Formats: sequence, C-alpha cells, structure tokens
Amino acid sequence: MFETELTRTLKIRYPIFQAPMAGGVSTSELVAAVSNAGGLGNLGGGYLTPEQLRSEIQKIKQQTDHPFGVNLFVPEQFEESEEAIYRMTDYLNKYRIELGTAQNPLILKSAESFEEQVQVLLEERVPIFSFTFGIPSPNVIQTMKQHGIFVIGTATTVDEAKQLEAGGVDAIVAQGSEAGGHRGTFLKDASHDALIGTMAIVPQIVDHVSIPVIAAGGIMDGRGLAASLLLGASAVQMGTAFLACPESGAHEKYKQKILSTNEDSTQITRAYSGKAARGIQTKFMIDMHQYSGTIPAYPIQNAMTRDIRQAAAKANNPEYMSLWAGQGLRLANDQPAASIVKQTINEANILVQS
Amino acid sequence: MFETELTRTLKIRYPIFQAPMAGGVSTSELVAAVSNAGGLGNLGGGYLTPEQLRSEIQKIKQQTDHPFGVNLFVPEQFEESEEAIYRMTDYLNKYRIELGTAQNPLILKSAESFEEQVQVLLEERVPIFSFTFGIPSPNVIQTMKQHGIFVIGTATTVDEAKQLEAGGVDAIVAQGSEAGGHRGTFLKDASHDALIGTMAIVPQIVDHVSIPVIAAGGIMDGRGLAASLLLGASAVQMGTAFLACPESGAHEKYKQKILSTNEDSTQITRAYSGKAARGIQTKFMIDMHQYSGTIPAYPIQNAMTRDIRQAAAKANNPEYMSLWAGQGLRLANDQPAASIVKQTINEANILVQS
Repeated sequence: MFETELTRTLKIRYPIFQAPMAGGVSTSELVAAVSNAGGLGNLGGGYLTPEQLRSEIQKIKQQTDHPFGVNLFVPEQFEESEEAIYRMTDYLNKYRIELGTAQNPLILKSAESFEEQVQVLLEERVPIFSFTFGIPSPNVIQTMKQHGIFVIGTATTVDEAKQLEAGGVDAIVAQGSEAGGHRGTFLKDASHDALIGTMAIVPQIVDHVSIPVIAAGGIMDGRGLAASLLLGASAVQMGTAFLACPESGAHEKYKQKILSTNEDSTQITRAYSGKAARGIQTKFMIDMHQYSGTIPAYPIQNAMTRDIRQAAAKANNPEYMSLWAGQGLRLANDQPAASIVKQTINEANILVQS
Repeated sequence: MFETELTRTLKIRYPIFQAPMAGGVSTSELVAAVSNAGGLGNLGGGYLTPEQLRSEIQKIKQQTDHPFGVNLFVPEQFEESEEAIYRMTDYLNKYRIELGTAQNPLILKSAESFEEQVQVLLEERVPIFSFTFGIPSPNVIQTMKQHGIFVIGTATTVDEAKQLEAGGVDAIVAQGSEAGGHRGTFLKDASHDALIGTMAIVPQIVDHVSIPVIAAGGIMDGRGLAASLLLGASAVQMGTAFLACPESGAHEKYKQKILSTNEDSTQITRAYSGKAARGIQTKFMIDMHQYSGTIPAYPIQNAMTRDIRQAAAKANNPEYMSLWAGQGLRLANDQPAASIVKQTINEANILVQS
C-alpha cells in the first residue's frame, strides 16, 4: 500500500519524508528513527560545518541501514550596507543586555563552505541529497548523480519547479505556504513570496513536470498523506509533525510551544534570519516588525541574531528563540517518530480502503 | 459515489458547491447550471438590494428545480475619520480623471439592508442560506432554521468554526488561504489574517466541530475534490474554477486574465474594499501599496472605489478592476459549468477507484 515509483526508486517502504530541520532539530536519532520505521529521515545540514556534517552522517549510518537524506542550503549572493548592519547591531544589543550575553563576532559562511559540504556528501555517499534556496551549479548536480546520489530540489511555484527539472534534479519538494521554517522561494524575492497553499501548488507543479513531486506544508497525519497522494504527489514531507518527538533536538520550551499553540498563531517573518520563514509568533518577531524595512538580508541577519537565539535557549526563554512551525499545529503530538510514521500509514490505509 | 450525509441532507447529487461570487459573477444562469448538473449553485447576494436579490432568486427558480444557496455579508461595525476619507477621495480622483468618470456619491449600506435581505430569503424560502464576515444574530439563524432553511457559516480558523457551531449553523465552509475573493476572517482583524492553507485548516476544523465542513480554497478539479473528502470535508466549494465559464457574469477581460495568469500572481489586498481579499495583481493594487496604512475600513473603501471599478469595466481596463481569484489559476478553463461539475466528478471517481 502507498508504494509509488518514488518509494521503489529510493528503496523506502512508505512515502513519508521527515523534513530536514536545520539548527539541531533533525538529530541523527530522529533521522534514523524515521528511516528505520520505513520513511525517509532527512538531516538538515545547512548550518553545519563540514566536520559536523560528516560526524552527523556517520552517526546516522551507525543507527540505520536504511536510506536517508541530507539537505543543504544553496548559497546566495548578498550584500548589505555597513549602516544597516550597525543599525541592526544597535537594535539587537538591547536583547543582549536583557539576556546578559556578549555580542559574538559576526561569522558569515562563504560559498566555499557549500562546496566543502557537497564534498562530504560525496565522500560519505549519502543516498539522497536535497537542497533549498535555489539551484546548485550543474556541476554539483551532475557530480552527485554520477555518484549514484538521488537529487531533490525545493520549489514554491511552478516556474521554480520547471527550472529545477531543467537543472537535472530527480524529484521536487513542492513547498506549500502552510510549511514551517524557511521558504524555499528563489525566483521571487522574499518580500513578494507568492505563498501558495499546498492544495493549490501540488497539482499545478505535478501538471508541469515529469519527475516525482513530494508534497510539503500542513501535512500532519494520514489524512494529509492520503489527500496529497490524490493530488498527484509521490510522497509527503512532514516537519512540524516530528518536531515534538522525543528524538527531535528541539529545545524543551520549543516542544512545549508546538504542543500548546493553535493553528492561527504562526506568521511569516524575516526577523531571525533575513529570509522569510514561518514560525510561532514571538515577542522578538513582534518587536522586529517596527524595523521590518531595515532588516539585513539573509544570511547576514541570521548570523547577527545567532548569539541571541543561543542565549535565549540557555535562558529557557522561547520569546527570543526561532520557533519554526507550520500551520498544522493542533495536530502535533509527542509520540516517538516511529509511532507517528506508523499511525500516519494506518490512518491513510483506513481512509483509502473506506 | 461521493454521497455524504451533507449531500443527502441538501438533496444534491454531488458534493460540489459553486462559490457565491458577489458583484455579478454568480449569475442566475451559473447558479442554475451548477444546481442542474447535480452540484449546489450559490448566488453571491451580498451587494444586491432587496429588490435585486428577490429578482435574482426568482430567475434562479425559473431555471432550476434543484436546491441552490444564497450568500449574504454579515454587516459589521465601522467608523472612519473624515480625514482618512478625504485623503482617499483625493488619491482616487486621479483614477477618475484618467477614466473620465465623475465621483459618485458615497452610498454605504446599513445593517437594516441586511435585515431586509434576510426577509427576502425567508419570503422566497431559499433552500440554503450561507454567510460570511461574521455571525448573524441568533434570531436570524433561528428564524432561518424554523423556516426549514439550511444555514452555512464561513470560518478561516478553528476558533471561528467553534463560534459558528455554537451559534447554531448547520455546516461550515472552511476557507483556506488559497481562496480567491474576500477573506471570511472575523475574529482576527484583517491585517493579521492567519491565512491558513486548505490542507491544514480542513482537518483541524473537522476535528473541532461535529457538523459538516465544506473545504474551500485552491480546489479546481477532481484531485482537489478527492483530496478534500479524505481530509474529512463533506463537500468542496469551488469559485475560480467557475469564473471563466460561459455562464459566469465576470467581465470578458476578467475571464481572459483568469485563463492567462499564473498561480503566483495573486496577492491579498485591501485596496479595493478595505477588507482583505485575494485577487490577480493589478496596477491599482500596486499603486495602493503606498497608501496601505491609510486605506479606510470595509465597507467604506468598497463604496469609495465602486465608481472607479465600474468605469474601468466600461473602459475594458482590467488594471483598475477587482480580479478576485484563487491560487489554482493554472487549472482554470472556460468549459460550461455543467462540464466542469461532470469532469470533476469523473476525475475524482477514477482517482478513488485506482
């Protein structure tokens, strides 16, 4: 049941991907638990150094013999005026004072770092490579494929999906507006993100590409899985559904927020990273609305707020942490990852047979 | 196939509602065509005078013996400073000059008008009454039900759905963020509309009410119908799918835009009416972004822009018309309404059986 061409190609039992959640949420335990349960675990490797990335991949391999994926962020051009950076530093210092933390040196990752991450994936021969925020060079995609790695891109519009297919990817995640975390949008600028809902974007992308499409955004249970397959998707990607799992690396306060927040309390914000992302509304997001025209671009703002987010986590203060979450919040639970996979499949089975 | 408790109660063959589209789009021809094809046609009566409303209802009755619905706008409190109105008048006069039209007197509908509309529905014994923008008084809902009229409210969040159920409605339209036209949001203010996608909002509302839920937003074909039923909906409501039908009263230029615009070219705007609504981006919407903090509230802005929209329609200039549309745009076609109903059912049948 629910076998698709994609599950056969990937050698996974169920068409359930656990979304790669960067920032320590998708631990090796979570990735392995989902893969061992018959889904596809995915490591969110975007923020990891090459050394950390290799270490996490090796930990996953120690915990599962099943396929898994690693997701990276495609580097983008950026520039920002010194004035905007000084101004934001000034705004942010009040949080540092409140949290009693010193300002960290501003460390920006270079494009070289992405090349090194790619090299780690090749050397470790990860089964599946997915990416977001753009399209890597043809050389990267072709090298991956020559190494037998299955390549998955992320699209939020039909045009992005067409460019990804032309770029040689093997499958596409169609990210609906319900999805938590960063928007994968790369053809429109973040402030004009089209934010197309999963119900609308999945069939439209399916109609315009000939490779498998993975539905993402607001999918939390067997109903969402069954509905997505009928829309034409070959699999679903679920993030928020796994956020409060025991295997998830999310901070305890973050997990509590996931389990206690309603569906209408997320917002799209650029406050934490400079790039549009969906999360549970926090005091930091509300505060930053007043500076919304002057937030430095990604990845600068992301680097600038890192020490504040880390200090907030240490202080158990969720109001200054980034609480990425999708719009299916009321359906989240704290079961182990394997139970969530199993329940999703069982529920979808009952629906499809009735 | 696709018979639900709701279709049996409403005595309709298929769980397909044609969305009530005010402003002349849902003509009596469109409503009757959908009802005659086995779906549920719905007249968007919100902007009609009691006399126009009665006339339209009688025209529908002449064209079909099947059930149909009438949708009204629940009146809301409003106040606006004279200064804001003068300022907007000033902004809008440049369009009047360009279109060569005189400023119309500002006519605002009162709450009395709603009571008169309700009276027409009672006298004409329409089978189904639906509403949006709030909840009518308990007296209105109870009187409707005592007259054997089935009452349907519109929710965009779980809390709104719960309030509607407590208010005594018989069913709820769950309006996802993909939907075209005005947002039904009434518990949050329009500028903080939660905009929850259909994939996420439908199962969450289904879990929190015990009355039937009708899924709306981004549903364009049999895939959307089948997916929505699996999410727990008892029917779907489709608007954009019927906009370019020959029976639709949409302006020819509007129909052309529906058939030629991509899924990523709609925006939520308050420019035309003062209330958040999704439409194809126009020059008017872009122009008005610069005044976004000073747009008078609904229904004032709606009354203020009416003459401009009408003059633009006469001049065949879609850039100053309101081109309400949902995010499923690439799936729109110009088949007759009956064909769209039939194709949707056939496609869903094939999907469910395979």
